[in-house]
Amino acid sequence: MAKSAELAKRAVKLGQDDPRRVTHSLKVGLALSLVSLFYYLQPLYEGFGVNAMWAVMTVVVIFEFHVGATFSRGLNRLLATVLGGAIGLGAHHLASLSGKTGQPIMLSFFVFLQAAGITFMRFFPRIKAKYDYGMLILILTFALVSVSGFREDKIFEFAHKRLSTVVIGSSACLIVSVIVCPVWAGEDLHRLIALNVEKLANFLEGFGDEYLRKLEDSDLNQDKSLFREYKSVLETKSKEESLAIFASWEPSHGRFGYRHPWKQYLKIGALIRQCAYRIEAIDSYLTIKFHAPPQVQTRLEELCAEMGMEAARASKQLSSSLKTMTTPSSATPHLEKARTAAKALKSLLKTTSWNHATDILAVVHAIC
Amino acid sequence: MAKSAELAKRAVKLGQDDPRRVTHSLKVGLALSLVSLFYYLQPLYEGFGVNAMWAVMTVVVIFEFHVGATFSRGLNRLLATVLGGAIGLGAHHLASLSGKTGQPIMLSFFVFLQAAGITFMRFFPRIKAKYDYGMLILILTFALVSVSGFREDKIFEFAHKRLSTVVIGSSACLIVSVIVCPVWAGEDLHRLIALNVEKLANFLEGFGDEYLRKLEDSDLNQDKSLFREYKSVLETKSKEESLAIFASWEPSHGRFGYRHPWKQYLKIGALIRQCAYRIEAIDSYLTIKFHAPPQVQTRLEELCAEMGMEAARASKQLSSSLKTMTTPSSATPHLEKARTAAKALKSLLKTTSWNHATDILAVVHAIC
Repeated sequence: MAKSAELAKRAVKLGQDDPRRVTHSLKVGLALSLVSLFYYLQPLYEGFGVNAMWAVMTVVVIFEFHVGATFSRGLNRLLATVLGGAIGLGAHHLASLSGKTGQPIMLSFFVFLQAAGITFMRFFPRIKAKYDYGMLILILTFALVSVSGFREDKIFEFAHKRLSTVVIGSSACLIVSVIVCPVWAGEDLHRLIALNVEKLANFLEGFGDEYLRKLEDSDLNQDKSLFREYKSVLETKSKEESLAIFASWEPSHGRFGYRHPWKQYLKIGALIRQCAYRIEAIDSYLTIKFHAPPQVQTRLEELCAEMGMEAARASKQLSSSLKTMTTPSSATPHLEKARTAAKALKSLLKTTSWNHATDILAVVHAIC
Repeated sequence: MAKSAELAKRAVKLGQDDPRRVTHSLKVGLALSLVSLFYYLQPLYEGFGVNAMWAVMTVVVIFEFHVGATFSRGLNRLLATVLGGAIGLGAHHLASLSGKTGQPIMLSFFVFLQAAGITFMRFFPRIKAKYDYGMLILILTFALVSVSGFREDKIFEFAHKRLSTVVIGSSACLIVSVIVCPVWAGEDLHRLIALNVEKLANFLEGFGDEYLRKLEDSDLNQDKSLFREYKSVLETKSKEESLAIFASWEPSHGRFGYRHPWKQYLKIGALIRQCAYRIEAIDSYLTIKFHAPPQVQTRLEELCAEMGMEAARASKQLSSSLKTMTTPSSATPHLEKARTAAKALKSLLKTTSWNHATDILAVVHAIC
């Protein structure tokens, strides 16, 4: 009982964190129910017979969370089915020329060669990134069409039915995924990049505003939540890359045109991660407790707070102008102010003989 | 012509970089040819008929590079086929109780409910990590068995044939992937972690040995290769995680028992990445040119070189004892020496009035 209550709570949280998960699940159910009509309605069933199951299978394996991912898998599957079917028919024809005993040997050889060759091609990074699924379906369709031909007389009909059911299944997925509450990978990428800049800003804000005022405080760990959110930025690279690939498959939508420069987002993402590495290094200093002489302490706090705040303001500006796709006009003055504060801080520390001054300087260095 | 020569060159390089890619491709070809025997040999074909294509399909979608990944997909597919088939038969029976017109409505409702429910379950992080593929096959088998039942009278035979062909296909994959040059994910993870420590050591070595001696040299960028290899460490997290999951599916092999503590590797991996973030921060200092007063310069070089070298020796010790699975006995003295050098360096810099001393101190801080 306690366990299932716990499970239900987690499920509710998953749904609340991103309600699109619930709609996605309902969409998959809808597409699958639509396609299963091919079994129930007599006129539709007469056209395809048991081959209707290819349509069901296509829906299950193609329907993904993002529109771009669904398009990527759907188009990969379609093209690979056409290509694999055509080569398979060719192989079947070639093999049938070599008589009853030669045919299975030839067919086995073709299947071996094609499977080994295409499996190797899947190791090419560019193919792996965009066409991995297509390559898989190419092997599959080739093997099914060419090998089935050994037993079935109506091999053209087999290939044709497989293709048309894949078309039906893919179309059902594409239409449902675009029409019913579409989840665009491009929009998610756009939002992710802006959010990552904001997370860095939160650290800088917390650094200037909170940390140095709490030097004597031992419960620094309390407001970790916002302050340490930047840690997730360190690990979004693969997510950004796959979103960018999905986005490149998506049709034009909203503010994003067909050839929106998705690769630029990856460059910004890499720069943000560079900053996050530095911040991670700064963060490791923050566990050290400094005890400055009182006459330095007040000025130190002021300057650190200013430096952090101004850097945070500049980052927030960048983040919001990313979101709204406008030029960040007011970021530069904030950056200038941050630099001025850093310079003042440096010269303050160089003139004091305080022992921990160099530690703080290292922090200043990492920020600017 | 030039393009295809370029392509061939790249293919050769891919094969040379990791010859296991070539054997993997041949293994896939072999498994597929083996399974296609079910079409060619009359006694085998009589048993399964066209259902033999499920075996072909299973091989294509299950065979992965690592043994653990193949096991994961194979066992997921098997279990999900059994479970999905059983629930599908149950749903078919329930639906058939409600008469000719009620049956398709009930079936549609069941398919919708099951697809939506399981698609939502795929969002649970733990299920996603280990059973994502199984969930997909569960939806698929349920839909195929329950919906096909509307048309086929021999639904038990359909479910039974689907299961036995999946068993045949999976077994072919598992046997070929374990017997012919197996590629163990566990071994790859083990090697990756040790290699990552070594990459950090290479930086530290290069830092002490090369960089400070070349202070006046402008061609620092030449030996980037080894020196900057650590950058790849920053981004291996997702690779480590998937290798650890695959490894947990693998049977006992070589030095790795059945319940080898794979999760510990992830902890070490996280610590290594922490170091790499620091090194990334140090590296950003190295573009600044220091011009120390001559009397300081020599001693500075000595101490920096020693600090780097000793830290590098300690890391190399750790890396090799990871590889050989022995206790790192000689790492501690090296670390002690590195700390002593760092202390000496700090006090040297504090006694000089040189302007850039604080910059160097920041570096010392980041290393120790």
